[in-house]
Amino acid sequence: MKIFKEDIIVALATPPGEGAISVIRVSGEDCASLVDRIFRGGVKLSEAAANTIHYGKIINAQGETIDDVLVSVFRAPRSYTGEDALEISTHGNPFIVEKIISVLLAEGARAAEPGEFTLRAFLNGKIDLAQAEAVADVISARTDASLRGARNQLDGLLTREIETIRSALLEGLSLIELELDFAEEDLEFLPYDELAEKLSATVRRIEKLLETYNFGKVVRDGINVAIVGKPNVGKSSLLNYFLKEARAIVSKTPGTTRDVIREELNIDGYLFKLYDTAGIRETSDHVEKEGVIRSRKAIEEADLVIFLNDATEGFDDELFEIIKEIKSEENIVTVFNKTDIAEDFPEPNAINISAKTGKGIDELLSELKKKAIGSHSYSEKTAIVSNVRHYNALNRAKENLTSAINSIKEGMSQEFVSLDIRAATEALDEIIGKVTTDDILNNIFDKFCIGK
Amino acid sequence: MKIFKEDIIVALATPPGEGAISVIRVSGEDCASLVDRIFRGGVKLSEAAANTIHYGKIINAQGETIDDVLVSVFRAPRSYTGEDALEISTHGNPFIVEKIISVLLAEGARAAEPGEFTLRAFLNGKIDLAQAEAVADVISARTDASLRGARNQLDGLLTREIETIRSALLEGLSLIELELDFAEEDLEFLPYDELAEKLSATVRRIEKLLETYNFGKVVRDGINVAIVGKPNVGKSSLLNYFLKEARAIVSKTPGTTRDVIREELNIDGYLFKLYDTAGIRETSDHVEKEGVIRSRKAIEEADLVIFLNDATEGFDDELFEIIKEIKSEENIVTVFNKTDIAEDFPEPNAINISAKTGKGIDELLSELKKKAIGSHSYSEKTAIVSNVRHYNALNRAKENLTSAINSIKEGMSQEFVSLDIRAATEALDEIIGKVTTDDILNNIFDKFCIGK
Repeated sequence: MKIFKEDIIVALATPPGEGAISVIRVSGEDCASLVDRIFRGGVKLSEAAANTIHYGKIINAQGETIDDVLVSVFRAPRSYTGEDALEISTHGNPFIVEKIISVLLAEGARAAEPGEFTLRAFLNGKIDLAQAEAVADVISARTDASLRGARNQLDGLLTREIETIRSALLEGLSLIELELDFAEEDLEFLPYDELAEKLSATVRRIEKLLETYNFGKVVRDGINVAIVGKPNVGKSSLLNYFLKEARAIVSKTPGTTRDVIREELNIDGYLFKLYDTAGIRETSDHVEKEGVIRSRKAIEEADLVIFLNDATEGFDDELFEIIKEIKSEENIVTVFNKTDIAEDFPEPNAINISAKTGKGIDELLSELKKKAIGSHSYSEKTAIVSNVRHYNALNRAKENLTSAINSIKEGMSQEFVSLDIRAATEALDEIIGKVTTDDILNNIFDKFCIGK
Repeated sequence: MKIFKEDIIVALATPPGEGAISVIRVSGEDCASLVDRIFRGGVKLSEAAANTIHYGKIINAQGETIDDVLVSVFRAPRSYTGEDALEISTHGNPFIVEKIISVLLAEGARAAEPGEFTLRAFLNGKIDLAQAEAVADVISARTDASLRGARNQLDGLLTREIETIRSALLEGLSLIELELDFAEEDLEFLPYDELAEKLSATVRRIEKLLETYNFGKVVRDGINVAIVGKPNVGKSSLLNYFLKEARAIVSKTPGTTRDVIREELNIDGYLFKLYDTAGIRETSDHVEKEGVIRSRKAIEEADLVIFLNDATEGFDDELFEIIKEIKSEENIVTVFNKTDIAEDFPEPNAINISAKTGKGIDELLSELKKKAIGSHSYSEKTAIVSNVRHYNALNRAKENLTSAINSIKEGMSQEFVSLDIRAATEALDEIIGKVTTDDILNNIFDKFCIGK
């Protein structure tokens, strides 16, 4: 995406399809004058007061009415983008939307790129980059926890924490640089050991943020859980019990779940993505072999594994060894199924369930939640890192500061220390977008939907 | 649907799914006070001026923010429904929409029934019933012609024509009834033969409207075209050529198109629905037999039939006889395909084409359009009937008036004439909704989407 801030951009802002109404968004300097050329209403939009709504008709080049619309008028800087902007509310018909966008394009507007409205909000200083990213998270959130996490970031908690850390670094930096300026006079504005201590405190603050990432990722993206077990051990039945509806194929013939089936489950506001795997036993059937490969991949990519055993058959040592090769034990939950037709299996730390009667399922869900989320909880007061870009940048800042502290300890010259601190602040700047490159912006906004 | 006008109703108004924004519509007396209880913004919505937009947050019962929103404030009677109304513009996330609607329901709003906003617009006298029906047509229009037709009706052209006819009848009626009141005095306010003449003029006016119905139906619903021909004659290839993409299965094995495939084609703004039939030859294959039955049904229901022949094989008399049993000849277009590998077939009135090279396709399209639309054309000035409900009501009005005219000619008493004219006006009243029953309303609005 080339960044042209001067164009008037247009896009459908509501989901595509048929409904009562659709909303077309227009943004750019004096866009009201452009829309006035195809709008017939009681007032000129370009003369309308900010934050008012106007009824009228959108006409085509032949002067025919395309639709009756309501137009909401926004004026810079009090709009989503920070520019003059309009929202045209039409009948919810994709054919009408297409026609109206066509006449807007014919009048000189340009079709907006994905995320371009939010990009402009960022470029115009309405929000910082972390907040812009949170907009996409707010739209894709599907559980209470993920929505809270996204709102946390949109409301600027991460931004404020980054700003605080950044200020502390900039203060240290200015003192060092002051010393460099007065180097000949050998003045010491900030004792070196005191600086090292301040930097260490900052590193601890960054580490505290980094520690929120596992939780933040779970909150944002959910927890991947692979259900693994020999054929006919009841994987699909368990999945079905979870979902209380039969979407996975349940059958008595071993090997029927050839594809990895994914279902989503909301446990106390957290999103668990369950993968019903084909079983990972060796097989000669070509199609099943494919399934085995996919299953191994699902285990690798899973955060947690439900290792499902048949209580009538006992602990499946062979399979356990295979899983342990792929996943560390702390991420495996051992479960015995079919306790409706067999005794509970006396394996320590294992959970005995029946996918038929529902026995033990609550315990299993609690265990999954405990393993995934631990003692973390969301607070409206605490900044949380949920984005890998932020995580990486914070890690870089931490490394730079550690290097600065080492330089101080090793008595190296202030230039080196200064360079590292500067690099750390720049890493932080990247998070909130004080410095950006086109690559970073493209990466972020390309993932947005058009119209946002 | 029970009609409770007093409730505050709420529904998602934009198409379901993910997007930049979604809009939740709320309508009912003082609905702003209800929404104020869950809205935190700079002003109270109940105190905001009409047609203004306000930024704020929607909170849940725990006081947590669900989303930042923009709320558009409308006041009775200047709203879509004619009542106090709000539009809440949220992030385009179905999870957020669900949560906000939930808190609105918890505050005492009720989930709107399909079409209930438009029903209220009708009940509150913002639009008449024919216009309300046109709203649904505007939303489902997918071609220029159908959109124009729907707009024609929404803009009130049909309504005005009905009102004009109705006024003439009411005038006649009041004169007759005046005579009845003064019957003893034997006064004649309107000579009987003059009345008959007036009624005949009205019948002609109604007939003119009725004549627009075929065109109106084509405009509104499109033209169904069945492509019929022996296996391997090129039905699917023709369909594909029309569509310029291979969505129907094309194969050299006869009998592969077992299901009737429907595709839509926009010819000069008119919607043609093409049905690729399985062929209607006799067969012993059970699955194909099903296809034959479906093909016969498709021919019955089609407005036009493309009777496709293979130019290398000549005119298929046998099949032509079968089609003629089902469809009258004026609705059959005889076509010879494969003229890329054979000479044009010299059948009079037949069209020679090649589905491979595209030869003759334009001629075929013109012929289809000519047969479907004839010399009709849409005019912004002429009322058009496109709705079977209106067509039936107009027919009833015509019958009643014909009966009234006969009564006059037979010298029957004024009471009979009066009764018939009254029945005619009531039929007209049904079209624009001056009289309605719950059945009529339910029938109309049940077909709307929720939120409209």
